[in-house]
Amino acid sequence: MEQRLSLVTLGVSDLARARRFYEALGWTTRAATEEYVVFFQTGGMVVGLWGRDQLADDSGHSDSGGWGRVALAYNTRSPGEVDAVIEEARAAGARIAREPAETFWGGYSGVFVDPDGHPWEVAHNPHWQIGEDGSVTLPG
Amino acid sequence: MEQRLSLVTLGVSDLARARRFYEALGWTTRAATEEYVVFFQTGGMVVGLWGRDQLADDSGHSDSGGWGRVALAYNTRSPGEVDAVIEEARAAGARIAREPAETFWGGYSGVFVDPDGHPWEVAHNPHWQIGEDGSVTLPG
Repeated sequence: MEQRLSLVTLGVSDLARARRFYEALGWTTRAATEEYVVFFQTGGMVVGLWGRDQLADDSGHSDSGGWGRVALAYNTRSPGEVDAVIEEARAAGARIAREPAETFWGGYSGVFVDPDGHPWEVAHNPHWQIGEDGSVTLPG
Repeated sequence: MEQRLSLVTLGVSDLARARRFYEALGWTTRAATEEYVVFFQTGGMVVGLWGRDQLADDSGHSDSGGWGRVALAYNTRSPGEVDAVIEEARAAGARIAREPAETFWGGYSGVFVDPDGHPWEVAHNPHWQIGEDGSVTLPG
C-alpha cells in the first residue's frame, strides 16, 4: 500500500444543502445537480459528499449519529488567513466550534463544523510549508 | 477558502498500536517514538494519528464511540491491486468489512477497518485517472 489517500467521503443527510455549503466557501464541482454524489477535486485527491445511509452501508458501518474521531484540517499561509476562512465559514452557515486563537503547539487555529457535523480545523502551522498549489510538506 | 484539504487526523485509543498498523502497511513517518502525534506525508497532504480524547477536545466534539460518517479511500491502478491491498491489511490485523467485489458504480472494491474503527475503501475506479505519484484526477 503506497503512502497516500485518494478520497475522503463525508456522509451527509441533505446532499443539496451540503453541496451549497461547500459552494458557498468557493468550491466548485463538475457534478450535475441531479447526481447522487458530489466530488470536489482537491489537489491530487478528492473530497466527496454522499448520502449518509448509503455511505454507512457501503463502508460496513452503522451510523451512530455522533462524531467518529476524524478531523479535517485546512492549513493557511498566515494567522490572518485563519480568521478570514473562519468568517467565510460562519457566513456560509457553519457553526464555529472553536474561535481562532493561539494553540498549545505554537500555531493559530479555529474550528468550523459543516451542516452535517464534520469538523474542519483551519490552522496556521509555522512549522509546515505550504506550496504555491496549496500542498503541505512536513518538516525534516 | 481554496479547494483543498491539508490534513486528515484519525483519533486513536492506542497510538503505538495505530502507528504499528500503518507501518505494517508499509507507511513511514519521521515522528520519534515518544511523539504524542504521528504524521504521515501522503502526497501533498498529511494523514495524522492522535489520541481520540485530545482530538475530540480539540475539535469541539464528544466522542460517541461510533462511526462518524467519514470514509477514507485508497484508489488502485487495477482490480488485482485491490485484492493485494486488502490481503496486506488483513495480514496487518485489519477487519475486512467488505471483501473485494464488483461495485454498483462499475468499479471493484473492498473495505478494511483499522484498529480504531476507521474504514478504508480500497477501490479500482476505471473512470478515475491515477498519476505516477498516486494523485487522482476526476474525469472531465
